[in-house]
Amino acid sequence: MKFVRNAWYVAGWASEFDRKLRRFTILGDDIVMYRGEDDKVCALRDRCPHRQLPLSKGHLMAGDAIQCGYHGLTFDKAGACIRAPGQDNIPKTSVHAYPVHEKNRIVWIWMGEAALADPDDIFSLPEFADPQWHAHQGDALHLKSHYLNVAENLVDPAHVSFVHPTTLGNAASEDVPVHADVDGDVIVAWRWIRDAPPVGFFQKFGGFSGNVDRWHYYYLHLPSIAVIDFGSADAALNLPEDKRHEGVRVFALHFLTPVDETNTIDRWMHLRNVAIDDENVSQSMDAMFRVAFNEDKEILEAIQLEELKPQHHRPVRLAIDKGPNVYRSRIEKLLHAEEAATEGWAQAETG
Amino acid sequence: MKFVRNAWYVAGWASEFDRKLRRFTILGDDIVMYRGEDDKVCALRDRCPHRQLPLSKGHLMAGDAIQCGYHGLTFDKAGACIRAPGQDNIPKTSVHAYPVHEKNRIVWIWMGEAALADPDDIFSLPEFADPQWHAHQGDALHLKSHYLNVAENLVDPAHVSFVHPTTLGNAASEDVPVHADVDGDVIVAWRWIRDAPPVGFFQKFGGFSGNVDRWHYYYLHLPSIAVIDFGSADAALNLPEDKRHEGVRVFALHFLTPVDETNTIDRWMHLRNVAIDDENVSQSMDAMFRVAFNEDKEILEAIQLEELKPQHHRPVRLAIDKGPNVYRSRIEKLLHAEEAATEGWAQAETG
Amino acid sequence: MKFVRNAWYVAGWASEFDRKLRRFTILGDDIVMYRGEDDKVCALRDRCPHRQLPLSKGHLMAGDAIQCGYHGLTFDKAGACIRAPGQDNIPKTSVHAYPVHEKNRIVWIWMGEAALADPDDIFSLPEFADPQWHAHQGDALHLKSHYLNVAENLVDPAHVSFVHPTTLGNAASEDVPVHADVDGDVIVAWRWIRDAPPVGFFQKFGGFSGNVDRWHYYYLHLPSIAVIDFGSADAALNLPEDKRHEGVRVFALHFLTPVDETNTIDRWMHLRNVAIDDENVSQSMDAMFRVAFNEDKEILEAIQLEELKPQHHRPVRLAIDKGPNVYRSRIEKLLHAEEAATEGWAQAETG
Repeated sequence: MKFVRNAWYVAGWASEFDRKLRRFTILGDDIVMYRGEDDKVCALRDRCPHRQLPLSKGHLMAGDAIQCGYHGLTFDKAGACIRAPGQDNIPKTSVHAYPVHEKNRIVWIWMGEAALADPDDIFSLPEFADPQWHAHQGDALHLKSHYLNVAENLVDPAHVSFVHPTTLGNAASEDVPVHADVDGDVIVAWRWIRDAPPVGFFQKFGGFSGNVDRWHYYYLHLPSIAVIDFGSADAALNLPEDKRHEGVRVFALHFLTPVDETNTIDRWMHLRNVAIDDENVSQSMDAMFRVAFNEDKEILEAIQLEELKPQHHRPVRLAIDKGPNVYRSRIEKLLHAEEAATEGWAQAETG
Repeated sequence: MKFVRNAWYVAGWASEFDRKLRRFTILGDDIVMYRGEDDKVCALRDRCPHRQLPLSKGHLMAGDAIQCGYHGLTFDKAGACIRAPGQDNIPKTSVHAYPVHEKNRIVWIWMGEAALADPDDIFSLPEFADPQWHAHQGDALHLKSHYLNVAENLVDPAHVSFVHPTTLGNAASEDVPVHADVDGDVIVAWRWIRDAPPVGFFQKFGGFSGNVDRWHYYYLHLPSIAVIDFGSADAALNLPEDKRHEGVRVFALHFLTPVDETNTIDRWMHLRNVAIDDENVSQSMDAMFRVAFNEDKEILEAIQLEELKPQHHRPVRLAIDKGPNVYRSRIEKLLHAEEAATEGWAQAETG
Repeated sequence: MKFVRNAWYVAGWASEFDRKLRRFTILGDDIVMYRGEDDKVCALRDRCPHRQLPLSKGHLMAGDAIQCGYHGLTFDKAGACIRAPGQDNIPKTSVHAYPVHEKNRIVWIWMGEAALADPDDIFSLPEFADPQWHAHQGDALHLKSHYLNVAENLVDPAHVSFVHPTTLGNAASEDVPVHADVDGDVIVAWRWIRDAPPVGFFQKFGGFSGNVDRWHYYYLHLPSIAVIDFGSADAALNLPEDKRHEGVRVFALHFLTPVDETNTIDRWMHLRNVAIDDENVSQSMDAMFRVAFNEDKEILEAIQLEELKPQHHRPVRLAIDKGPNVYRSRIEKLLHAEEAATEGWAQAETG
């Protein structure tokens, strides 16, 4: 399984972790996670090196150690073996401990070289701390599809007209061209639909009835976090691009966690600059998001099934594919860079 | 997957098609089928060449075009791309359109080279148009077995004594030898059981109680259509082979559609020269056929499971295998001929 | 699939066999088994050599012959073909007949070279015939795990402290070292826990409340039968090893039948030197065994799932692994010996 490993991924909402040993599968790795006595989340490879029993089937002991449920081999939260029942000497063995960091009520996990893990690199958004904005966590959507299929859908403004006709898109945007650009580790694809009827979402939450200017900015933070900045403003204002905060504006966030080659978890949430602290609006928006994201799920799972079948033709590429094309090519580059670095280490070790 | 492709297969009963987009899988190909505005059935490869979404998940548009449900790429019923939202030029892409023809309330599809498709080659039987005969459609039986297993069962008179002891066979025929012959694309295997008690089917529908002459003629039209001509007449008449129309005679038809390597659909129906237009008899015969064909299904699915396991011995061949042996050898020849033709084209193209 | 074939395996409890044709899968072989007219159990390879239908889907005929359910090919209980309907000559074909022997209300089957099968080699235990002992059959536990995983658990005294803390083990034994030895085809691993609180099982069935001496002797009869001799005696007696019969003593027997690479049946029973003929105690012990053996099942099935995943590290070995280590190395030797013998025969045949 090829995944970008030197990155912070979302392991879960903070609320998903407690003193119970739970198994999470991320990038194909099985990981046991739990909160330590200091409330910090611990993450160990979920397989005892003795007889391979998942440690999550064992017991959490004093001092946050895990005792294997088969023969009692015990590991501290840093992964070091600290007890082997029936013998005095401690065997030279350990399990991998993954760097973990909690931020914005989200638990982040570093899947690559532990030495490279820097919490300052974790995804951030100033609006989390801005009192003019309201942040609301949604659901964890499980998709039976490779994360690249899911991610490219999140840097693709063109699909909304066809997949989400009752919520996020409508026919007015069908033929509006897409722009795309890259800024460091962020790809952005966007388009404005000027002076057109509002989509269902903004009829409901913007209170618009007449024509609006509508924007969709899809920011894809490599490898797999999306911020979709979308909103509307009265068409009479002729809002310039950099004045979007004057309109009704929503950031839909998608934190994609690749589970394995054919499964992805999309933890989604939103921030908005209207209806601050109004829980009813939060619930109501979630309901509309659920409709839209289940429409995506149906498409993305159907695509996955086709990809597993024999391929006879190269896929045709369209003008609207700018965002997905840039995205996939950047992921390839990251994978090659990690591969080269691994080979470099291997040579240094044996050379 | 190796299948004979240059042939008309049954896609479905005419009643299975309407204005809804439906996916059918035939010879491993996924195909979207629907009735056009002129009521004729259309069949396109069910995969958008852009991002591989099945077209059956899209929308049927005016003029019988299909719009993909992901980004709106649109194809006419001949498979040509006619619209790509977000760009003016139409990409040079298409999906395969399968020749389709409706005949005898059955929809036929040509799975090979479209240029070779000739509706005159579709299976025909004069009795469909004969007022002395009654035609009645039965069910679509799904079997988890390779179509060759199912087809050989339909050119095999010997199994009825053991598999269908209460309906189509009985002990009287256990040791009666089987004859087999070939006439063009039709293989026939047959036997007569003279002066013996009637089987359950003809006790019920022929009204026989005393001894009868009974015949089973299994006509296998390559690659996968069977006509089983079976019937009985009072043994006192000593009916010659060519006077079968004077007895109570039934044609059981089986249209086999290979789905993939381990699945087959058997759409079965019958024609009979008694009880014309008597719907009660039709239903009553269907009930008896269902008993018999489910007996076959149990056998053929069990065999499939064994075939998927390691094979340690060459199967033993028996005298009763004449029909199946000829059938499998003819299928091999057809496959080799198609393979050679394909290589010929490839050489002509590159040479 | 590599299994030790020249051995008597348990096919089932005697009560599992009657005049019905039943399929059993043992070492990956499908076998049809049934009681003959003389009440002796017959076992044939469950696949007709004609069209591969399982013979278990056919019919049991007079004289214990089986008639195939497809075309009536018939085999006697020694596996010889005795009838082929539709032809006078009997084809030269047969199905393998497995040697079978019934002993101690258990049906044993020989999976290797028939010429080597000697009923005197079947597992025996003098206590079966000793009126001072009571024998009671338990259940057939199906485990989704390779039999080597299950068997090594039965030559491993160390796991009971961690897997069975409420029944067969407790914390007092966690750090007591394990001894192991080999005597012919029997591996034994054992330990004594002296002067410690009794485990749940002997609190209940020994009536102990004060400290006891407790022993666990795990005898593994190659390839896959375990006798676990465990018991307790008042610590004040300071019971020597060879006076165990003076304590409360139980033999838990496990007859492992490898089904295939990932499935095993454990038919378990016990003998005891207390509460002779007391059916309530039998039921009550079974209830406690079920708790314990389901704890093993959970562990052993979880391990199997891990073993099917990619392996990145060599497993660490511990001091407590003496029994399992000896066991696996002896199994390897048996497999190599059988392989060499097979090659020897092959050379003798072709040389």
